[in-house]
Amino acid sequence: MVAAHISCIVFLAASLVSGVPRIVDLSHKQNAASIVWPGDPGYNFTILFRGFEESYNIWYENNYIALPEHLGTHIDAPVHTVKGAWKTNQIPIEKLYGSGVIINVKTKAVTDPDYRVTVEDLLAWENKYGEIPRHAVAIMNSGWSEKYPDKTRVFGTPNHTNPATFHFPSWHEDAVTWLINKRQINAIGVDTPSTDYGQTTTLPCHTLMGKNNVVGIEHVANLDNIPESGSTIYVPVLKIEDGSGGPVRIFATYDDEPKKTNTAAMLTCLTFPLILLGTVLICMIRS
Amino acid sequence: MVAAHISCIVFLAASLVSGVPRIVDLSHKQNAASIVWPGDPGYNFTILFRGFEESYNIWYENNYIALPEHLGTHIDAPVHTVKGAWKTNQIPIEKLYGSGVIINVKTKAVTDPDYRVTVEDLLAWENKYGEIPRHAVAIMNSGWSEKYPDKTRVFGTPNHTNPATFHFPSWHEDAVTWLINKRQINAIGVDTPSTDYGQTTTLPCHTLMGKNNVVGIEHVANLDNIPESGSTIYVPVLKIEDGSGGPVRIFATYDDEPKKTNTAAMLTCLTFPLILLGTVLICMIRS
Repeated sequence: MVAAHISCIVFLAASLVSGVPRIVDLSHKQNAASIVWPGDPGYNFTILFRGFEESYNIWYENNYIALPEHLGTHIDAPVHTVKGAWKTNQIPIEKLYGSGVIINVKTKAVTDPDYRVTVEDLLAWENKYGEIPRHAVAIMNSGWSEKYPDKTRVFGTPNHTNPATFHFPSWHEDAVTWLINKRQINAIGVDTPSTDYGQTTTLPCHTLMGKNNVVGIEHVANLDNIPESGSTIYVPVLKIEDGSGGPVRIFATYDDEPKKTNTAAMLTCLTFPLILLGTVLICMIRS
Repeated sequence: MVAAHISCIVFLAASLVSGVPRIVDLSHKQNAASIVWPGDPGYNFTILFRGFEESYNIWYENNYIALPEHLGTHIDAPVHTVKGAWKTNQIPIEKLYGSGVIINVKTKAVTDPDYRVTVEDLLAWENKYGEIPRHAVAIMNSGWSEKYPDKTRVFGTPNHTNPATFHFPSWHEDAVTWLINKRQINAIGVDTPSTDYGQTTTLPCHTLMGKNNVVGIEHVANLDNIPESGSTIYVPVLKIEDGSGGPVRIFATYDDEPKKTNTAAMLTCLTFPLILLGTVLICMIRS
């Protein structure tokens, strides 16, 4: 039983150093269909070489890509809408990850395509999962990413060039303010084209986030594939010098059912000392 | 003491679910000075807008970037040198991370700029840190990244256009074969321009890795800032459709001094049951 107890502790301790967590891709692929905001030039892919390369005697493929920084799954650096704020390469890497907080508004978005995440949505999340950790990455899951890259469905209108006609879910500025002031949020994201609603003429969320050096994330994918609480989300944007944002391969990691495992481990670990304690008490009573 | 033991176990278990690990950036920034292989076109950065934007009444910055897939800190997809192998967007995300294995050959590279990592270097690492975990990310640290982006120092010659004159450290194909066959490696990287030596005319490492769907990583930075063992390295390349590789914001995460903490935690956790066990034995002897 001593051996069992020691191996249990070794198992727990080993879990801290070995093994890697489960990983989930939260990015759309980058190609000519990738969505940009109206007015931005599109994606361009040029084959530099594809075929048999005689000097090395091998098959060889090599391509050139060209894209606006705010194409497809991408981030907005704070300087995107606030003069003097962080450029892409100036964002500390510590701001590009955090505890994953997924705000599920899919049911609301079905009936209201203009739905904006509220403070009440955040409080409902906290009521279910506990207080939002400091320096988290909070992302709205409106169910919108399954529409991507169909522009008519993503923008909510066949008029892809006029934001005044757009309909897609986003964030309310009060919820953004609350996350900044009350929870020191690192990044705020959406599975739609913008953290602000399409028809805005003032971009309140962008401005608030820029002024407070909070990273924005747009066109996030696969949010149904991670838990609403308990993941870590990474937003490792390309380190573009002088950038206003940039394309990113956003992903999440998490442990499978960690709480269940821990409860079982704790109970197992407690068994041996409790039996020993009982034996000591019996010994003491008898002696 | 029971309380101390329980809190110790709770601490150990809690470490499994809460908190986020330390993060370290392993990428050079992307700009016009970023290094490409001879013959590749360079990086291009175009300002689309920078100034006061009247329709939204805000400051606004937006840029367009253009680059070859194999520029600066980037990956080689298996299809880069092997026909029909994985394209960039086809690499499973599970292959883009793993336990960090840093092979330090800095001393050797000072006297031999053509040094190639050997099987013996890998065995020396294992002798120090234990067997290389399955599906790891192994990267050579030759001290070369501090020369970046000085092409003359990085390529080891003022002739930046002729690989036959290049001198920089890389991998020996025997070590690559060993990592593939014996340790099921996910990705192999360098802090230099190529996993193969510059003067090769056959690219043995590239070909081996491509055939075995192993990801290559080139121009990695800041390897002195992570431990040689105990980190997790992420290589979240842009999800380029039909790509042969792509720029990446590679980074590592690790817990501070996990082994020291675990040893201390294990000793603390063992104290209470061992004292209890002693008491039981004394009780049994006396009764």
